[in-house]
Amino acid sequence: MRNIKLTIEYDGTNYHGWQSQENAITVQDVLKKAISEITKEKINLIGCSRTDVGVHALGQVANFTTESRVPPDRFSYALNRVLPPDIVVNRSEEVSLDFHARYGARGKTYRYLIYNSQFPSALMRKRAYHVSHNLELEAMEKACGYFTGTHDFSAFRASGSDARSSVRTITELSLKKKDSILEMEVSGDGFLYNMVRIIAGTLIEIGTGDIKPEGIADIIASCDRKRAGRTAPAHGLYLVGIQY
Amino acid sequence: MRNIKLTIEYDGTNYHGWQSQENAITVQDVLKKAISEITKEKINLIGCSRTDVGVHALGQVANFTTESRVPPDRFSYALNRVLPPDIVVNRSEEVSLDFHARYGARGKTYRYLIYNSQFPSALMRKRAYHVSHNLELEAMEKACGYFTGTHDFSAFRASGSDARSSVRTITELSLKKKDSILEMEVSGDGFLYNMVRIIAGTLIEIGTGDIKPEGIADIIASCDRKRAGRTAPAHGLYLVGIQY
Repeated sequence: MRNIKLTIEYDGTNYHGWQSQENAITVQDVLKKAISEITKEKINLIGCSRTDVGVHALGQVANFTTESRVPPDRFSYALNRVLPPDIVVNRSEEVSLDFHARYGARGKTYRYLIYNSQFPSALMRKRAYHVSHNLELEAMEKACGYFTGTHDFSAFRASGSDARSSVRTITELSLKKKDSILEMEVSGDGFLYNMVRIIAGTLIEIGTGDIKPEGIADIIASCDRKRAGRTAPAHGLYLVGIQY
Repeated sequence: MRNIKLTIEYDGTNYHGWQSQENAITVQDVLKKAISEITKEKINLIGCSRTDVGVHALGQVANFTTESRVPPDRFSYALNRVLPPDIVVNRSEEVSLDFHARYGARGKTYRYLIYNSQFPSALMRKRAYHVSHNLELEAMEKACGYFTGTHDFSAFRASGSDARSSVRTITELSLKKKDSILEMEVSGDGFLYNMVRIIAGTLIEIGTGDIKPEGIADIIASCDRKRAGRTAPAHGLYLVGIQY
């Protein structure tokens, strides 16, 4: 038996998120079906991150065990021939049998794209969140510093989250502006439900002046979801990669 | 009567190009209809560049005359409320009555995006042309120099072109690589039919080693379309802007 690790890119626009569910097409279902088509087995596909409806991935990671004799690095080729063009397996490799895509993850990196311009973008409309209000980058950059470190992020956690602890460590939170695109990138040991989107939404409200950068420490300490900003929409979010 | 100039962005994926035609949806038709909805007039919309099926635009320019009393700079707001999300008017302004979007153009800038990686990209699949063969950037950069200047570009002109002269001046041709995206940008006084896509296709064949950079001078001099490279596909092409 072999344990195969897949690194997957997808355009989340036409999927009901990663996680299998009834009466909706999800990335996990489509990928599982493609793998079974190749291995002729019923397989169990473990994904690292349960991305929401509309969220994109550049480096989702999943694993499955198989008796198939397809060489591990050839799975990517075989799968890309079967998969729809909005899901691409960029890498397939054999890993030790105890590798678990979800429980083995030590860190994750997400990106959030904001299109900051008077009018929405025709070309980026499903790839970045449009904000027409002028955003003060300097204030937003100042705020980033308050997020890094180990904190109880209850104020940045959507209800419906089933994680036991709400303490997480953000190792890096940075902003980069190029033309009208403002790119937020965040890395940490893990993220609560909607945490990245609430951080993005809060940074936007700092950019518009509705929240002061120095207010972030208080908001985190309050553990009160109502004090943080709105949840930024899914289509600006990208799962960039997972560290093991 | 006022002459209104529009600067337009569009995602070309779902349109049969710019130019109005029967039995197909084009950007010009959709935009014309939106303008008429606002002005309640039958209008004549002059576009600068007849982009092909699938070609995108960041800065297409068009103009129309109207008796409407809508303030010129408000047309963009009014139009964006009516237009589908894959067409956006980024600017509307009054120009002198003798402004003609097509005949007044003194120069154009196009961009061509190549996604150079083993597998296609899920997220860029309708935004960049996938080339899996490793491309030698240095050779491609060397070739760029041969294109600039004033030449008879018959070898880089598709049949069906109705331009009288095939002499054009390329003022700049540059390449930029970021991660897997290779961006070609070209500016000139005008381009023959498919000329930018044939230049992109030829640069790709230089990158794969099928054509030598020094061969470009000969290919141009030959005026023989068969000696240049293949026409790169439409979905990697962007009309960036037009100079007047």
